[in-house]
Amino acid sequence: MASKNLLLLAGDGIGPEAMAEVKKLISAMNDKLGSGFVTDEGLVGGCAYDAHGAAISDADMAKAMAADAVLFGAVGGPKWDAVPYEVRPEAGLLRLRKDMELFANLRPAICYPALAASSSLKQDVVEGLDILIVRELTGGVYFGEPKQIIDLGNGQKRGIDTQVYDTFEIERISGVAFELARTRKNHVTSMEKRNVMKSGVLWNEVVTQTHKARYADVKLDHMLADAGGMQLVRWPKQFDVIVTDNLFGDMLSDIAAMLTGSIGMLPSASLGAPDAKTKKRKALYEPVHGSAPDISGKGIANPIAMVASFAMCMRYSFGMVTEADRLESAIAAVLDDGLRTRDIHSPGMTEVGTTEMGDAIIAKF
Amino acid sequence: MASKNLLLLAGDGIGPEAMAEVKKLISAMNDKLGSGFVTDEGLVGGCAYDAHGAAISDADMAKAMAADAVLFGAVGGPKWDAVPYEVRPEAGLLRLRKDMELFANLRPAICYPALAASSSLKQDVVEGLDILIVRELTGGVYFGEPKQIIDLGNGQKRGIDTQVYDTFEIERISGVAFELARTRKNHVTSMEKRNVMKSGVLWNEVVTQTHKARYADVKLDHMLADAGGMQLVRWPKQFDVIVTDNLFGDMLSDIAAMLTGSIGMLPSASLGAPDAKTKKRKALYEPVHGSAPDISGKGIANPIAMVASFAMCMRYSFGMVTEADRLESAIAAVLDDGLRTRDIHSPGMTEVGTTEMGDAIIAKF
Ligand SMILES: CC(C)[C@H](C(=O)O)[C@@H](O)C(=O)O
Ligand SMILES: CC(C)[C@H](C(=O)O)[C@@H](O)C(=O)O
Repeated sequence: MASKNLLLLAGDGIGPEAMAEVKKLISAMNDKLGSGFVTDEGLVGGCAYDAHGAAISDADMAKAMAADAVLFGAVGGPKWDAVPYEVRPEAGLLRLRKDMELFANLRPAICYPALAASSSLKQDVVEGLDILIVRELTGGVYFGEPKQIIDLGNGQKRGIDTQVYDTFEIERISGVAFELARTRKNHVTSMEKRNVMKSGVLWNEVVTQTHKARYADVKLDHMLADAGGMQLVRWPKQFDVIVTDNLFGDMLSDIAAMLTGSIGMLPSASLGAPDAKTKKRKALYEPVHGSAPDISGKGIANPIAMVASFAMCMRYSFGMVTEADRLESAIAAVLDDGLRTRDIHSPGMTEVGTTEMGDAIIAKF
Repeated sequence: MASKNLLLLAGDGIGPEAMAEVKKLISAMNDKLGSGFVTDEGLVGGCAYDAHGAAISDADMAKAMAADAVLFGAVGGPKWDAVPYEVRPEAGLLRLRKDMELFANLRPAICYPALAASSSLKQDVVEGLDILIVRELTGGVYFGEPKQIIDLGNGQKRGIDTQVYDTFEIERISGVAFELARTRKNHVTSMEKRNVMKSGVLWNEVVTQTHKARYADVKLDHMLADAGGMQLVRWPKQFDVIVTDNLFGDMLSDIAAMLTGSIGMLPSASLGAPDAKTKKRKALYEPVHGSAPDISGKGIANPIAMVASFAMCMRYSFGMVTEADRLESAIAAVLDDGLRTRDIHSPGMTEVGTTEMGDAIIAKF
């Protein structure tokens, strides 16, 4: 049997609380189903800085490289607002993405039927929404050099970041988007700002070529990223798969998540290229929400995004499609029963805490 | 009497149709009120490329520099999708912004009461919405160098754009935001991505210093730009003035515009620094919507954003506050009467074309 080594990096804020529910689930699956998950743990973010002075230690980084999959909670909080840029909590996540070469970030924005009414958008605009944002995750302005602040003298400084994309990076991320579209509604929308950015011109060109050469059966549209943001708000159901760069993907996927009325519910997967020999992809699974320091430690955080990230992990890293489907159904069933954490609570529903929500999902699983 | 020289650059697509309504209004004001506007016209965008091979000619650029204010329609369309990057329609607008040093882009997102129901957001989320996005317009990734595509050989290219901000640029745009906040609800939210961008670190630092040194009476919040986009969708009324950079401002202002359910209604002003001697600011006024080639030439475009841009022009360039107020009230009155162009039409309302809408506003003015 193939190994199922998981590294759990719970991180800061509500990360550990949400991760605790996944740990219970893993134990239950090992006990009752003999699923054979082996877990190890490490530190990332502010807690790693407190322990080691770095946002992730080399030892934990080595564990992540060796694991079959990493489950990641969330990082950051006001406690670390003043730490040096190089060791800020986010640096741990960025190092994981970069060193593991997790270039493909999959962010589904799904509107759970039970929650359609709780979106700030009209119910008919979001009901049944199911889009997938494929965000490039190891390139662009996040990692391009030069990236620095220069002292110009006279009280003037200059802040510089560099957006860089090479052909092969655009090719491989659009390949992922086209492949996934084939398993869905067969429609990809590529977003960039080719009207002001040279990287956008190249993006548009390479996506078009990749489509022509290998995926001509998939419907492809191009949209300027600003117009894309507007269209997401106006009528999101026009989209199936959206493929875009690191920074636009950051903005657009958060907006898409918010449309669903349930940012506390949405998982993500970050995947590397398949290994030439083993065909296995390095992978990290992470809720879209952040560390939410304002509610951490109160037992009220919504663990669903973290649990749903574990479902994605089973699906993409271990081919456990049945179990992933069952876990996603368990989440939907618990919502149908009216159970709600505070962030998604509405009149007539039953408010529960983090552990109760986790227990209820496990019970339905 | 101070001069009132206007340069009209109608541009492409629905630009000329919308501009025609403003021309009628200007004639009426000159005839009946002796307003004394003197207009000249020029070409920008695709039509300028067709005529001169450039997105704006040096002669028209000189006219823009000399005018008291520029009214701008819209540029671009599929006809020019394949023209070289340097002369694409948008290059005309970008040259105007850069050469006139229009660093401050003011984009009000206002929800007209008559249209609150037509937003894709729930009525209570957007009703009464009145936020102002102050976008830096002459810096950042739009203009930073290097900006190029390099051929790396082996079929590989590299697309590069550079995000650059200097202290003085952040200082002056935040000064504009704080000043405007004082005339409103006295609250500024600054948005950047300091957790991944060095320019964001500098942005945050300079806004904080400017606030402390000169505007401590204004409430200041900082938000990461991705979280800001989410909050705009979740509960936009939490904002008063948002100040942000060129690229984030592009994305966020379009999203804010879409919230109001009426992108065809929203104007913008782009202002330079006050001249040391005359105190006059160079200025360009422009609807937020684009050239909408799909509906151009059909007489159905909504001229309200263009007319409202002229109201901003009267307010900011000529101190004609009474006339600006009256024009904005005329727009609201026509909507209250149930008149709608197709883009904002809803059951029970009266659908009208571009000229009818323009005439109705002039009649109420
Ligand atoms: C925490 C931060 C560095 C990160 C990003 O900007 O990528 C987050 O916003 C995300 O979207 O995963
Ligand atoms: C036309 C384009 C260059 C422009 C921009 O990106 O600034 C437009 O989207 C805007 O927001 O004014």
